[in-house]
Amino acid sequence: MDEEGFGMLGRMMVALEEIEGCREFAALIPEVRTNLVYARAHAKTRDDVFAIDGRITVVEGRPRAAGRVRFGASSHMARLIIELRKVDLSVRAGIDFANTPHLTAWLEDHCRTKGWVFSVIDRRGEPEGIKETEGASMPWKVAEAVRMAGGKVPKIFYETGAVGKEPVSVLVGSDPIEVAGQACEIARKYHGPG
Amino acid sequence: MDEEGFGMLGRMMVALEEIEGCREFAALIPEVRTNLVYARAHAKTRDDVFAIDGRITVVEGRPRAAGRVRFGASSHMARLIIELRKVDLSVRAGIDFANTPHLTAWLEDHCRTKGWVFSVIDRRGEPEGIKETEGASMPWKVAEAVRMAGGKVPKIFYETGAVGKEPVSVLVGSDPIEVAGQACEIARKYHGPG
Amino acid sequence: MDEEGFGMLGRMMVALEEIEGCREFAALIPEVRTNLVYARAHAKTRDDVFAIDGRITVVEGRPRAAGRVRFGASSHMARLIIELRKVDLSVRAGIDFANTPHLTAWLEDHCRTKGWVFSVIDRRGEPEGIKETEGASMPWKVAEAVRMAGGKVPKIFYETGAVGKEPVSVLVGSDPIEVAGQACEIARKYHGPG
Amino acid sequence: MDEEGFGMLGRMMVALEEIEGCREFAALIPEVRTNLVYARAHAKTRDDVFAIDGRITVVEGRPRAAGRVRFGASSHMARLIIELRKVDLSVRAGIDFANTPHLTAWLEDHCRTKGWVFSVIDRRGEPEGIKETEGASMPWKVAEAVRMAGGKVPKIFYETGAVGKEPVSVLVGSDPIEVAGQACEIARKYHGPG
Repeated sequence: MDEEGFGMLGRMMVALEEIEGCREFAALIPEVRTNLVYARAHAKTRDDVFAIDGRITVVEGRPRAAGRVRFGASSHMARLIIELRKVDLSVRAGIDFANTPHLTAWLEDHCRTKGWVFSVIDRRGEPEGIKETEGASMPWKVAEAVRMAGGKVPKIFYETGAVGKEPVSVLVGSDPIEVAGQACEIARKYHGPG
Repeated sequence: MDEEGFGMLGRMMVALEEIEGCREFAALIPEVRTNLVYARAHAKTRDDVFAIDGRITVVEGRPRAAGRVRFGASSHMARLIIELRKVDLSVRAGIDFANTPHLTAWLEDHCRTKGWVFSVIDRRGEPEGIKETEGASMPWKVAEAVRMAGGKVPKIFYETGAVGKEPVSVLVGSDPIEVAGQACEIARKYHGPG
Repeated sequence: MDEEGFGMLGRMMVALEEIEGCREFAALIPEVRTNLVYARAHAKTRDDVFAIDGRITVVEGRPRAAGRVRFGASSHMARLIIELRKVDLSVRAGIDFANTPHLTAWLEDHCRTKGWVFSVIDRRGEPEGIKETEGASMPWKVAEAVRMAGGKVPKIFYETGAVGKEPVSVLVGSDPIEVAGQACEIARKYHGPG
Repeated sequence: MDEEGFGMLGRMMVALEEIEGCREFAALIPEVRTNLVYARAHAKTRDDVFAIDGRITVVEGRPRAAGRVRFGASSHMARLIIELRKVDLSVRAGIDFANTPHLTAWLEDHCRTKGWVFSVIDRRGEPEGIKETEGASMPWKVAEAVRMAGGKVPKIFYETGAVGKEPVSVLVGSDPIEVAGQACEIARKYHGPG
């Protein structure tokens, strides 16, 4: 590993510890679990992106990483970050979490308060030819999130509407400690419906 | 804990070790992860059902339990077993795993070879009033699986067709060591499409 | 595994959970760590004795098992229990923990209160020929503990006085839940010197 | 955490992964377990030294960290490194492992081959007044190791001869990846007596 890698790995460990220490975040971990990713400054492939092997799940009511932080440990979130970086190179980190109608409305408000760009990917609009080709969805999804955000990479966005896919929200930023802190702040401020 | 509990917990640990030792099973763990459950002989609620806290996920390419085996650690799979037991009291254990069109076709063949009853729950047929009521789906799903199996509890069944829900397969039996062994045999024999 | 093994494994898991949940016990875990062992009713070798692979260590200030509960996972404590069973077959479980002059004095009092037999193995009395032969110490140590206890297997004993060996205390009983409970009670009642 | 800390933490994680991946090192882990430490460039106290919470133990025949890498997680090894740095500021990392007469003789040869300084601390020479004062041993031990090495900080040294203390060997260097690599090379080359 090189110097960039050592510093990135240290930041990932600190970010992960923040998430594991935030009991409220457990309520935002979806069935498909949460991942936290961090791309090299010149990332080209998923092997340039740190992620958590086995993702973050809920154990004894708290967020817990299933495995180690490794380059290449994520497929979906790593490809998402790499695709977003084609639009904005400052995006290097991201985290995914739950999505419900109630949370979505709350997040939209939260983004307004923070001055963050919010967006949505409605997968019912995805062309059939793309849906059927393994791996082809990502460029379409990112283009859709950016289009719906008026041409910018949004800070938070969600995708919804697919058969057989749990909808999730995504928050992105430049550093895993930043995105972990922002995700934990959301978890502490948000209280579910009812 | 009582004598029944100690023996059940020991059996859960041995069953879990079989799954963790079966590298091929990692390919059958869905995004929503796998759980393994085991109900008391007179189980009434989810607190009478052992399950794995945090479920089983994939770490370093192998199945790995995220947390401990505990009574009450599952909601969905525990309620499924309890509902199935209203039809057949011999059902005490179950495991869920991936579902794809290719695997479904293979499982149907496998069941024929084994002399096992196979069934399906098509959630597109679920009445709207049930879908919208939290927790109301389970009796409908079990009734549907049993109806499609000609009135018997099937050995393997799957549910499919819901927006926002990953489809999964379920295998049930009388003991977690039995169902773990049967699930691992499937994992070793099945090879994905292509 | 057989029926006896399943029940024993369940009891070991419950006993371990009690120890892991007793924060005060962390202060009694020696540098060489703690093990908890449980022998079959007809145990002949260490492979008939459950123990914790990697023993119990202190993580984040709490007792934590390093690995799984397995038959054969202990050498020293397993051989100790097997040797004790030559004197008293009701002894099936044991746990080892710290030993200091202050704790020893306290334990002697505690045993008096409980009506338990207390004993000591002073390894300075061990014949040279035994010390030098790998594995030969155990029969001598058990004979010494029993001799110093007036012919009975003591409930608690300690060994001390060897160059290169950290002294430890041992508590034995018929069941791991019993010995875990008794060890945790000691940990909660005992407060170190000063 | 600051930039130095992030980079150090990343290096600790990589060093730890090397040790965990070296099955042969398990044979060199003493009863008191192994720690790996890494001091800040301007370390003053143990809170400036990274170490492994719960140390490294043997699980399923392999080295395994019990807990997380944290500043302040070691007392003994951290104080040893800080004391050594009073003689040589380039020393920032260290690892401890087993010590037997056979290994000692082998290590002395290995040091000769590598051109490394080897030393010994014979605790039978420790003045009584120092032995009895908690924490007073470390300056004496380091002075003794340096004195026996002709005034230099040795690369490898061991301490022996104390009642109630397991003897260990220590290897030091400037970086945890360096010392982990050197310790694993020793483990792979060394084969125990017989």
